[in-house]
This record gives sequence, structure tokens and C-alpha cells, in this order.
Amino acid sequence: MAELSKVRTPIILVNFKTYAEATGENAVKLAEMAEKVSIEAGICIGVAPQFVDISTIAKRVSIPVFAQHIDPIGYGSFTGHVLPESVKCAGAVGTLINHSERRLKLADIDAAVTRAREVGLISVVCTNNTPVSASAAALKPDMIAVEPPELIGTGIPVSKAKPEVVTSTVEAVKKINPDVTILCGAGITNGDDVAAAIRLGTEGILVASGIVRAKDPYKVMHEFAEAILRVQQR
Amino acid sequence: MAELSKVRTPIILVNFKTYAEATGENAVKLAEMAEKVSIEAGICIGVAPQFVDISTIAKRVSIPVFAQHIDPIGYGSFTGHVLPESVKCAGAVGTLINHSERRLKLADIDAAVTRAREVGLISVVCTNNTPVSASAAALKPDMIAVEPPELIGTGIPVSKAKPEVVTSTVEAVKKINPDVTILCGAGITNGDDVAAAIRLGTEGILVASGIVRAKDPYKVMHEFAEAILRVQQR
Amino acid sequence: MAELSKVRTPIILVNFKTYAEATGENAVKLAEMAEKVSIEAGICIGVAPQFVDISTIAKRVSIPVFAQHIDPIGYGSFTGHVLPESVKCAGAVGTLINHSERRLKLADIDAAVTRAREVGLISVVCTNNTPVSASAAALKPDMIAVEPPELIGTGIPVSKAKPEVVTSTVEAVKKINPDVTILCGAGITNGDDVAAAIRLGTEGILVASGIVRAKDPYKVMHEFAEAILRVQQR
Amino acid sequence: MAELSKVRTPIILVNFKTYAEATGENAVKLAEMAEKVSIEAGICIGVAPQFVDISTIAKRVSIPVFAQHIDPIGYGSFTGHVLPESVKCAGAVGTLINHSERRLKLADIDAAVTRAREVGLISVVCTNNTPVSASAAALKPDMIAVEPPELIGTGIPVSKAKPEVVTSTVEAVKKINPDVTILCGAGITNGDDVAAAIRLGTEGILVASGIVRAKDPYKVMHEFAEAILRVQQR
Repeated sequence: MAELSKVRTPIILVNFKTYAEATGENAVKLAEMAEKVSIEAGICIGVAPQFVDISTIAKRVSIPVFAQHIDPIGYGSFTGHVLPESVKCAGAVGTLINHSERRLKLADIDAAVTRAREVGLISVVCTNNTPVSASAAALKPDMIAVEPPELIGTGIPVSKAKPEVVTSTVEAVKKINPDVTILCGAGITNGDDVAAAIRLGTEGILVASGIVRAKDPYKVMHEFAEAILRVQQR
Repeated sequence: MAELSKVRTPIILVNFKTYAEATGENAVKLAEMAEKVSIEAGICIGVAPQFVDISTIAKRVSIPVFAQHIDPIGYGSFTGHVLPESVKCAGAVGTLINHSERRLKLADIDAAVTRAREVGLISVVCTNNTPVSASAAALKPDMIAVEPPELIGTGIPVSKAKPEVVTSTVEAVKKINPDVTILCGAGITNGDDVAAAIRLGTEGILVASGIVRAKDPYKVMHEFAEAILRVQQR
Repeated sequence: MAELSKVRTPIILVNFKTYAEATGENAVKLAEMAEKVSIEAGICIGVAPQFVDISTIAKRVSIPVFAQHIDPIGYGSFTGHVLPESVKCAGAVGTLINHSERRLKLADIDAAVTRAREVGLISVVCTNNTPVSASAAALKPDMIAVEPPELIGTGIPVSKAKPEVVTSTVEAVKKINPDVTILCGAGITNGDDVAAAIRLGTEGILVASGIVRAKDPYKVMHEFAEAILRVQQR
Repeated sequence: MAELSKVRTPIILVNFKTYAEATGENAVKLAEMAEKVSIEAGICIGVAPQFVDISTIAKRVSIPVFAQHIDPIGYGSFTGHVLPESVKCAGAVGTLINHSERRLKLADIDAAVTRAREVGLISVVCTNNTPVSASAAALKPDMIAVEPPELIGTGIPVSKAKPEVVTSTVEAVKKINPDVTILCGAGITNGDDVAAAIRLGTEGILVASGIVRAKDPYKVMHEFAEAILRVQQR
């Protein structure tokens, strides 16, 4: 069970945002549910709760916990900022960087990726299109998650509505840096969307409302996991 | 002892920033030390740790815990932001807003103060001079902490180097909103600085390095608390 | 005619934004049209073109020209920023500050108002509601323009849809600083809206699409000016 | 002489920032001086004045004029922003993007480069180190100007103090996009620094205080131009 806490691909990474369904005690329950599905299906599922929920969740589950953001700072006078060391110390294994709802300046993405590497956090840089994904790849993050912002939260899956964004991102990123793991996100709500994403060359998905706001998140997570398993078996 | 958790004035509010001495386990120890001094001296001492440390500290101590920042948002799609409800739910009783290291747009300070009020968090708006303090007072926060940024971290106390900033702030703020509690900060390192601040009409201090980075924070907190008691006894 | 260039109240202040109808040569034509109406109707009309159009327009018309924004900076190393001295030198007599499409941090609004005063530019701080207007008043700008952002560009006039925002703003601002000139804006498209704004206690309006994107801006400006004259004659 | 207005490499690009010596009438004089040196030495010299000075300067000189920044926007409701079309229409042939004093979010750099291309402006993306330069190269700008921010304004030339930053940037950028012209900047004050920059593989320099604040800018520009000619003749 120890390796449950390790990040493996393919991965389903669930962004809790600031949804009521994924805040405080609800966040803990959802993380426990994700852990259960992860064990049952044998697929890596990571969760990205709010900062204040990281330590509680990291103590309660053995699946990988991510921060939603870190600041490109170190110890010192940075009131109100998110210190990479603190996030790591609270039990996170990785962090989103530059999510479309928390975009950063280019030099700060570079510095945040560097800081993540220094403290041992897996960096997942979010991007909005192919050129920006290629650009991010040059900064050598561990993962890139491409999400066309116009599809986020719509239920229109990037893997079906804009498959060319996914395939061109995979191609452009791998050309610059073949070591980067590529995820995609936006609008993913069912197993078919997930399977399509994997078939297009990604190694996982970044998902939020599709799971967090689903009527039955447990069922949807299982559906996602099984879709990945089906693609893998081919 | 129950009332220990309540915010009373005069108050010593300790900003942990992202100092190594006040991160993770160090943050818990420092908060426990603050609680000890608060009980021994009978003076209200609040602590403002990093977001990820709030819940752990709030469970371990009964003194008031503040966030260092909240975002002017509600439940929803705000990845990487600090939700007021989460901070409250994690055990904080209040929050700094607009610290000089995390300045906000005017409309966002207004919205953050409103959100703090809605969820039951005490709002402490930080300001950099007298006009900005007056401006903040019009937004009806619970407290205003004036800190000339050029003195922060210098060891040159605002209460001695710029007493006129403190007195003119007290006057300007009270004229616009007599209900606001006024703190001052920047450069405060010993009991005399604290006593001077109280004599100038403030109801407490906002302090960071003066305590966090002191050789003996326990001793310095006692010195601060006793300085307040001496002024009160006159 | 010399006094045409002076800012007098009541004033119609036309924000050119980055509308195609008010960029480059179109901006010059629109400013000349505004000057014509100003002379014919005897009402002060100011124009706020883009930065690059200020000098050309200021040379061609004698009505007051405003910048849309200034940065709170002085001479020095501020690449890509808008220096108050440059704007003044190019012929502007005033500037918008903190427009809802270019919001500033509180400390920067304070610094920008101070800088405007230092170089002799009339400061017009834009605000989004009554508390923020009161807050801005404490910074002692020359004018405050309250514009509920949700009405901007809608054609639903603030003076009719939210008259209480206007009256409470007038009351709150005058209480803090009786010397501030109050304008209102958002959704104003005809003379009735303008008359309503003046009757609610403002001394002018800030308008953009209502004039810039009108089929016949000349006619609309005349309608606005005459509405003001009618209210004044009562 | 017509081709004077065209951007050719090697290029000396002079950033006027908001220096008093390069504002308003001083900016025009400095631009005319740059034009004189450009003609006399036969080297391309571009100038990047403040927004409000672009149109006046572009009318007076035939050398290339650059904006210091553009916003990634189009025609519409963007009060206080810098419209690429306006800058072009005022006579600029190019623009700096992401200068260290005006850093942008990654997605906005991408959008600004795209907008520059759409309106026919040469894009010069400023970067602070090698990974960020590589990252910028993936966005396909026309030029990249690498400037270690810690050296800007110091008089310690990047080409001598950190030659490896320049050579590794040239290598990394060319690998991702061989079509990008590479400039370097920061601390360049004499001909030797310029010659060193060219020898390291750049096609020009971005310079500010080294020329603008020189006692005799005319003489320094000539020295820079001749240093380039000497390197070319070898």
C-alpha cells in the first residue's frame, strides 16, 4: 500500500478548487473516497485541496496530495504567500502552478518550478494552448496540464471538442522536453472523455467539477479509472 | 480560560510571515509559547501563521489565530485562492487583509472586508500611511494596522521614529469611523516601543521579526505584555 | 474661448477606451466633435483618449483632455509605465485613476492621486460602490466617478437602475470630503439618464459607449448637454 | 535613406524608460541624435520612448520606433491599456514585451506576441535567464532580449560578468527556434561591452541608462556603433 502515496501515471488529478463540496470536512470525505477508488481500481488518483485542508487530508489518506498553487518564494518576509517548504511539510507531494484561475508571470513560473524541484514537490504547470505548453516545457516541470480555458467547467470535453489541441500539445512538448508528463483537462465528465484523452497521447487528466460536483463522485471516479484501464488493455 | 480564544484589546498580534522560525512544527511551538505568555501575563496575544499551518495551530492553542490574507471570493472556481470560509472552518478567528507584502486592489479590500464580516472573521486591514488608513476606515473593518513599509523589519520603531504617523492615523481613522480598533507596527523590538505605541493611542501592535526572529521570543513576548500592563496601570 | 480648456462643472467626460471608433484618426475626429458641441452648448466636455493619442488630440482641440490611467511613479526605471509628467507634458489636464478596467491597489491609488496633484493633473478616481467611494474620498482626489461595474456598457443607466447608489455615494463622499466633485457613470445613453444623474446630486457624468459607439455621437453629445442645461435652469 | 526605418541587425535598441533625459522634448532630441548616429555609422539604432511620445518621435525621425509594452488586447473596453493597433498607428514598428520592469503572465506574453504579429509590430520579448529565454522562444517572437535583472542599471555588463548566460541563451533559443534574433542587455556602458555581446553570438543590444544617462549620449552611441562595426569586420 505504501506506493499508493507515490505519483504514478496514468493519473487522475482532482482539483478541489474552492467548491463547497470539497472544502473542510467535505474535502476530507472526497479525498477518502478518491483513496478508496484508487485502491479498488489500481489507478493513481491525486487530490488538490485548498491550502488550509492539505495537512488534515495528507494525514488521513495515502494517495498523493497536491497544492493548488505555490509562490516562487523562500523563507522570509512574504506575508500571505504560499511557501513551497510549508506545502511539502504539510504532506503534499506536488503542486499545480499557473492554473488558469491563478496565472503567474513567466519569470515566476520558472522560479516556482525551480523552487518545487528544490523542496521535492512534483510540479504540474497548467497551460492554455499549444504554444504556451511548448513554452512551459522549456522550464522543465515534471508535468504539464493543458486546459483550454474556454472549456473549463462546461462539460464539453477538450479530448472531443479540441482533440487537435491535445495532440499538437503532446507533439510540441515532447519535442522540447520528452521527459514531461502531459495531462489534459477541461470539460471532462465521463469515461469516454477520459479514454479519448489517453488515446490522444496524454498520461492522465486534470479534472474538477466533473468529479467534485458530480451527483455520485465515487461512481464517476470509478468510471474514469475503468476507462483508463480499458485503454491500457488494448 | 474560554475567553482566551476571544480577541480582546490591547492585543499583540504576531505575524509569522514565512519565517523558518515560524513554519510547520516551529510555528506550533511559537504559538504554544504565545499562549503561555498570554495566560501568564493576562494579555491577548494573537498569532497569524501560514495558511497550511492554521488548522494544526488552531487545534493546539486557545489563543486567537489569524490568517495572513483572504481572497475576496466565495465557494466556486477559484483554484489557488484563499476562501474565507475555509480559513474560518480551519479555526481562524480573523485575518490580515492588504499587508504591505500582499497588497490588494481597493475594490478587493472592500470585498474582502465584506466577506470576512459574512463568515465571522475579524478583519485587520493593513495600511501604509495616514491617508490610506483613513481610506481603509471608510470600509468599516474591525481593525486597522498602520505600518510604514520603510520601517518594517528595520528595528526602528514606528512609535518612536514616526510618532506623528501613529497619532495622525488615530485621529483620521476615528473621525471617519470611531469603532475601528487601531494597531501599529513596523520596527517594534522592545517593551519601550510597545509602550510608546499604546501611549500614542493605539490598542495594540502588529509585530513579526521583533518576536519571531528574537533570540528568546518567550522573553520578548513577556516584555511586550508587561509594557502594555504598565501603560494601562497609569 | 481660452477657458474652454479649463475643467468646469457640470462636466461630460467621454472615455474613449480602446474602441475602434475612438482610436487614432477617429479619436481626433471625435474630440473635435466634442469640442464643437462644447462650444455650441456652452457645457464642459472632456475627452479621455488612449495614451498614444493624447498629444495629437491636445494639439488639435481646446477642450480638456484626460489620460485613462497614470502609474504612481516618477522619473526613472519604469519601462512600460505611464509617467504623470509625460501625460501632463503631452497636454492632458487630468487623468482617470482606478477605472474598473484598470483597477489599482489601494496604496497605489493614494500614490497616484498624490502624483497627479504634484504635476498638476486633475484626478478622477473611479469607484464601484458607496463604501469604495467613501474610501476614495479620504484620499482627497479632485473628482470621484462612481460606476457600478455590472451596468457598464449595458445601456441600463445607473441613474435610473440604481439611484440609491448615486445618492448614497454623494452623501458618503461629501461627509468625508465636501470638496470632491462627484460624477457617475455606467449605462448612460440618453438625455434623461444624464438629467437624472444631475438631479441625484452629481456634477457630471463619465460616459463611454453611450457616446463613442452611438450612431450619431454629435447628436447624442448635444442631447446630453441640453439635458444638463434643462436641469440647471430649474 | 528609406531603409533607415527598417529594423536590421545588428541593432542597438535604446529603451528610454521614464528617464527625465528621455521624456517629452528631451525624448525627441535623443531620438534625433540616435538617427544622426545611425546615418553616420550605418548601424541600425532603434528607440523605445514612452507611449505618449511615440507619435511625435515617429513623425520626426526615420529610425525604428518601438513601444515599451503592449497589452494583449484588441479594440473594445480596455480603459488604460495599450492597444497594439494604436501603437502601430502612431508610427511604432515594434514593441518590447515583458520587460523586467513590466513583467507579464505567460499566457499574456503569448497573446501579446500574437497580437504584435497580427498588427505588424516586431515583438521583442525580454527575459531574465536562459530557461525563460528558451520558454519565450517557443512563443515565436521576432526577437528575445535577455537581461539578468540584477545587472540592469549597474554598469556591470552582462557580456562580461555573465557571458555564460548569453552563450547558453543563444544556444537554448536557437535550438527551439533558430529564427529568433537574440539581443542582450543590462549594464552595458561602453564599446567593449557591446563588442563582447556581439562576439558571444547576439545580434544586438538593449540598452537604457548606458546611453540615456550618459554625459554625452551622442558620443556613446557612436562608440557602440563602431564597436559593432569592428566586430563585423573581423
